[in-house]
Parts: sequence; structure tokens; C-alpha cells
Amino acid sequence: MAELPLRVILLGCGTVGSEVARALSDPDRAARLADAAGGPLEVVGIAVADPSRERPGMPAHLLTGDAATLVRDAHADIVIELIGGVDGTVPLIEASFESGASVITANKALLSTHLRRLSSMASDRGLDLYYEAAVAGAIPIVRALRTSLSGQRLHRVMGIVNGTTNFVLTTMTKDRADYADVLAKAQELGYAESDPTADVGGHDAAQKAAILATLAFGQEVTDADVPREGIEKVTAADLDAAARAGHVVRLLAIAERVGDGAVSVRVHPAMVPVGHPLAAVDGALNAVFVEGADPGPLMFLGTGAGGTPTASAVLGDLIAAARNRRAGTSQRPPTFDDHLELLPLERLVSAFYLAVEVADRPGVLASVATVFGEHGVSIRSMEQVGLGSDARLVFLTHEASEAAMAATVEDLSELEAVEEIGVLLRIVDGSDS
Amino acid sequence: MAELPLRVILLGCGTVGSEVARALSDPDRAARLADAAGGPLEVVGIAVADPSRERPGMPAHLLTGDAATLVRDAHADIVIELIGGVDGTVPLIEASFESGASVITANKALLSTHLRRLSSMASDRGLDLYYEAAVAGAIPIVRALRTSLSGQRLHRVMGIVNGTTNFVLTTMTKDRADYADVLAKAQELGYAESDPTADVGGHDAAQKAAILATLAFGQEVTDADVPREGIEKVTAADLDAAARAGHVVRLLAIAERVGDGAVSVRVHPAMVPVGHPLAAVDGALNAVFVEGADPGPLMFLGTGAGGTPTASAVLGDLIAAARNRRAGTSQRPPTFDDHLELLPLERLVSAFYLAVEVADRPGVLASVATVFGEHGVSIRSMEQVGLGSDARLVFLTHEASEAAMAATVEDLSELEAVEEIGVLLRIVDGSDS
Repeated sequence: MAELPLRVILLGCGTVGSEVARALSDPDRAARLADAAGGPLEVVGIAVADPSRERPGMPAHLLTGDAATLVRDAHADIVIELIGGVDGTVPLIEASFESGASVITANKALLSTHLRRLSSMASDRGLDLYYEAAVAGAIPIVRALRTSLSGQRLHRVMGIVNGTTNFVLTTMTKDRADYADVLAKAQELGYAESDPTADVGGHDAAQKAAILATLAFGQEVTDADVPREGIEKVTAADLDAAARAGHVVRLLAIAERVGDGAVSVRVHPAMVPVGHPLAAVDGALNAVFVEGADPGPLMFLGTGAGGTPTASAVLGDLIAAARNRRAGTSQRPPTFDDHLELLPLERLVSAFYLAVEVADRPGVLASVATVFGEHGVSIRSMEQVGLGSDARLVFLTHEASEAAMAATVEDLSELEAVEEIGVLLRIVDGSDS
Repeated sequence: MAELPLRVILLGCGTVGSEVARALSDPDRAARLADAAGGPLEVVGIAVADPSRERPGMPAHLLTGDAATLVRDAHADIVIELIGGVDGTVPLIEASFESGASVITANKALLSTHLRRLSSMASDRGLDLYYEAAVAGAIPIVRALRTSLSGQRLHRVMGIVNGTTNFVLTTMTKDRADYADVLAKAQELGYAESDPTADVGGHDAAQKAAILATLAFGQEVTDADVPREGIEKVTAADLDAAARAGHVVRLLAIAERVGDGAVSVRVHPAMVPVGHPLAAVDGALNAVFVEGADPGPLMFLGTGAGGTPTASAVLGDLIAAARNRRAGTSQRPPTFDDHLELLPLERLVSAFYLAVEVADRPGVLASVATVFGEHGVSIRSMEQVGLGSDARLVFLTHEASEAAMAATVEDLSELEAVEEIGVLLRIVDGSDS
């Protein structure tokens, strides 16, 4: 008996959406997907912003500018949301569930605020909400956290989840080039947006950190909960100094347990020991490092962005949602404990890197060192590099609290001899790896 | 309404089995597993070789020496097979399916010969067969291939799937030590068995290669189909020479498409470019590198052996099997196309590394080079190192066929001036990464 096709609608047909549409209309690929999904899939509608625009290869009769009506009337089995943004997509996803459809989305902004509520809405109706493509593109980290690792007590999830910043940092290192030049090059190559703020400022990584933390710990974390620092102040000199200390610099999204009852979730540039698997992740690649007592360290590496890699994650979800639909079941939603305290950044402890530019005259180093001492921040090493009439002091500290370090930076900025305070880097503890 | 526990039986209670039993009897961990699995799990029997032996922490009333009767009479929902071996376990797994139980196994020897038949047997009855722990321990590569990547056309799966050999090779490099010394150290540390043949000879990796190839390409491959070479002939001098050429040496399990209608599956030591993600995999870690046109390169890294990591993979499977059991469904089995030809090694092409020890006298290099030329193997570079009255010649070739290279080695061994032929290394093409 031939299986009836499952009805799929696509909301959004940009870089990722058009790739998904192509995969579902190419006979070879559609056959492979049908085989994996246990039966054929049929695209019955595609919502786009401007249906009158010419779209080579897209069947014109499926295009509509009215996403809401499409969702309401299409009797879809599965809705794939690739529009992005939050305000416009929330009602579409709610309407999809109300219509009885499962939902697949790549929308990290949406999930970093509405994951919990939308998960319940799906499971209350026996429907699926899948979102592999929302974190780290083609890398199946969401599925790993929701299935293979779901019974494990995890200590830490730590990832390079923004390809733009990783490209910038690794190119700065390789070419010994400055931030602004490399960012311009990244924009030229299409690795950075013309407005790069969301990437270089850590906003994009913070949304992904919120989703990873929620899945890893069963604790609702939204992107507003995630303190973030970007890479804008990282210089080639910082990368050199880090290398001399046996480290590389990476923008990390970190979600970790602190003691028994708390978690910390944050995004900042960090010094990673060269022997750590994350240190080998170069260019625009993404990687997520997971640590738990039983599984030990795990790392998942791959392409974090781009049309076809992201579409491959969407198609993996489509197969899963279709299998479930045919079997009359749905994936178990993440469970929420909500007993974990979300630690503010100030309460964390780590070793730090700080570069300070000062006037090069007698007594300055002593006055700078005094400030560290006043806040109980113990200096592990100091390097001084002459810059004409100025000098650059590079400090590595022993472990200190974020609060003490913030107070140190604050007081340093008020010293008359201090000309500029550079980036503050946390030094990642690689002992578990 | 309280859910009735699912009935689980454990066959085998060695390193991995006892860890699984501990997880299911510890109240905290059992609660976490029950939460992930959608309801409680109860161990109702444990088959062991010698039930009279003292096993601290194991409930004595659950132990039996009669696995067959346990499987037949226990009304189990899920059977976890951790006995190992093939002849004794096949009837137990068949009997489990006949009794209506899903099966989880970590048994790579079994699956590298019986995966297809046992998968059909499970799916014919609407039951599950899960085997994450059979390949690369805690790394969820089996699930990724069966779910996320199941609709993708993959080009190549290439892995470091044997921790013993990776420990030996990376320790030889780090300590500049000889094979025999490092193997002895590995045996002392518990990284190598007292009889290391299955690991160092590539048999263990070949079983995993067969399973990975079967899942990646939907083509039944058994371990008897996998040509294998081990690391026994690799010397510290080879590792040095590889390093000078910008490579590291790893024992790889490789499954790749060749052209449109063929696959090649094999295990051998290989030279991996230092920039390749697999080159950064040190010590006893495992990693599997997957390449497909759409997802791009992916790598999965983690702990490939040991009680708790392997048990964590078994527990991930247990959660999945339990969820399915409660939902009255089962995972879609791998599909088989069987239209792919399994290429014999002789038909492959790659660049090679070969070290030859010769008597150090005039004319020898010319006679050695002549042999390469007679078989059409073009030499890319040659290094000569004096060893007293002998010399060591290290060749890197351009691409050549395995057949030509094998004939070259054969003829070299018949030259009077050739004292010893060292390891033959294939040079991995890193272009896709």
C-alpha cells in the first residue's frame, strides 16, 4: 500500500528555506528523505514576504504572502518555520500547534525566550517541536542533549557557537592582523554581516547559550539571563600574549554547574589551553564541548551556519517529525526542574588575563599592582612591553572572583597613569578534558 | 496514575554491565533515568557466568547463571546484552526478540556480522535494536547516523575508533619512544590488553568500520569484508618523518564512496595532515569524522572505552528504547540498498609513505628507485638517513594504485640490498575538511 504523503509547509524561503525546498523537490533527494522518513513528504505551501518576486526553481503556485492563512487552512502535518524574529513568528507557531501540526524551527531568538512555553504547548497536544538548526547549524548537538545524554548529569556545556567571531579570532591569530582589518575581510567573504553587532557583541552566542543551558540542565534560561561580552576589544597583541602562555582565544558560550544547586550561563572571550579540543577549532567552524561524570568529555564539531548545512539539520528534524507523525507519537519534551539558581556573573571565580596600557614612567607598575592587591587579586605573571612613551602591561592572575576583578578594573581606570584598559579574558579550566 | 516500571534484564555484569546495574539501582540516577525515559525502569534479572561469586552492591536474588531461561521467562520489556562474543549471544538475542523484548547491545563482534539480520528480526516484530555502545563508547555517532544524518548522502566516515592504538601512537610521538616500550606502558596503565592483538592488529577497528559503513551507506558490510593493517610496524622514526611532512599518524577506520556505485571500507594506519580535526585527537580518545555534501564536515569526539563512558551510551539507548516501548513504537531500522559494490583494496588510489632499510652503498638508491618506476609509482620526495653501514630511505609518493604499490613493496623485498621494509602508510586527503 502506497503511503499518503505528509503535508509540509514552509514559512520563509531565504537561504535556508530555499535549500530545504530544493531538497524536497529534487527527485533523488526527495526519495532519500522519503526512505528515511518512512514515506513521502509533500510541500503544500511556502509563505514568503513577496510572492510576486521571481524565484527560479520554486513552484509559483505554492507561494503565498499570507503565512497566517496558510497555517490555518493548509491541514499541514509539519510546519517548518524559517522566517526568524520573535514577534511575527510566535503567533504562527502557536497557530501551527492549534491546527495540529508539528513544528520545526531554526529560530534561536524565538527559542531563547519561548522554548519552555512552546515545548509544553506541543507536548500538550502530542505534537513535536524540533529545533536542531537553532544551535550550531549542522551539528546534531540538540538531538544529543535531548536523547543520548538526557539521562546524564552534565557538568558543563561549552561551545564555539558563532562562526563569525571564530573566523575573526583565528584569522587575527594566523595573519597577525588587527580586529578591524579582519572584520572587514570577514564581511567581504560573507562570514560577517554588514552590521556585525549581533555576532561580535556575543548576542547570537548568548541566545544559543540559553538554549544549550535549558536542554543540558532542565532549567529554563532565556537570553536575557545570559551576561555577554564580545570580542571587539581583543587585539593581535592579546592573541600573541595568550599564545606565549600556551592558550588560544575563543568566544565561548558556557553553561556550567557551580556546586550542587546553581548554574552559570555566560558568553565571553576566553583563553583556552592549546591542548583542549576546542583550541583546535579554526575558522568559521562551530564546536560544542560537553562534560559529564559518566560519558566523560565529548565534543561535536561542524559547520555552524550557511544554507545547506543549516538545511541539513532542518531535514534531520523533518525526518524525525515525519517518523513520529506516522507512528502516532512525539518526542518527549525537555523536562524542567527549576530548582537550580542562576548565578550572577559576579559570583563566579576564575583566573584572568588583563592588558593595561600605561604611561611608561617609574612607579606606575607599583601603583597598578597595588590596585590588584587592594582587591585581593593575586598576580600570577606580568609582562611589560614598551610602546615608546607608553607601556603595555599584561597580567595573568590566580583565581579571583569576578566581583574582585571588576572592582580592580574599575579602580585601574581611575588611575591617572592608565591610558587604556584592554579586554578581560577568563582562563578556561581544561582539567576535565 | 503511577506508571508501571518497564522490566529490564541484564545479560553480563562485567565492567560495563555492573556500571549499568549501579546506575539503575542508585536512587538519584534511577530517578533521573526514569524522568528521561518517561517512567521507572526495574532490573528483574542479571545473568552472569558465576552467580555464586560475591558482587558487592549487586542484589544477589537477581543473579542467575542461566541466561537462556532468564530471557525466556522474565517477561522483559528490554534486554541489555553485555556478554560479548558471537556464538553464545546470537541465540540469546533471537530469544529476546521472540519473547517480545527490545534489545540493547554493545557487542561490536556480533553486529559486524549480524546487524542486518537482527535489525530485520527486531523491526518485523515492532521491536528495537539499539547499539550505540558498540562503536566509539560514549560518542553518540550511531544515533547521529541513524537519525540526524539518515536522509543525507554521505561521502566518507573516517574514525579513530580504537583507543589503545591511538594512545600508543600519540604516546610514541610525545615521548619519542618505541612501539614495544609504549605498548608495555599501555598494558601497565590498562589501556591495552595483555594480548593486544585485536587492538594493534586493527581487528577491533575493522568491526567498528563494518558497522559504521553499514549505517552510513545502507550497504551491508561485515568485518570479513574489511581489509585491515595494524600499527605493529610503525616506528618512532616513521612518526618523526610524518611530522616533518606536516602529518601525524593515526590508525583509521575508513568507509567512503568511490565514484557513484562503490564503497571502500578498510582499516590501516594513515598520515593525517596536522590541520585536520582528527590530527588533534590525542591519547585514548576516539573521534569519528563524517563528510557529506550538505552537512559539510562533522566530527564527534569522546571517550571510546571504559565502564562508565560505555555504560552512558547503553543508558542513552535504554532511555530511547523505554520511550518507544511506552509509546508503542520502535525506531525505524537502517534501510539497505545493496546496490553498492564493495571495492577491494587493490582498486584504491592514494599517496603513500614507505620506509625501507637498505645497505648503505653506491647504487642502492638507484635500484630501489627503479622498482618504484617499473610499477609506475611516482616518487614525490625521498629522505635518506644513515644508520652506520645501513641507510633508511623514506619515500613519499604521488597518487598511485594500491596494486602498483603492493607490487613495488613485493619487488623491493626481493632486492638483495633491502634489509627491511617498514610500514606502508596511506596519506589521507584532507581536502574535504
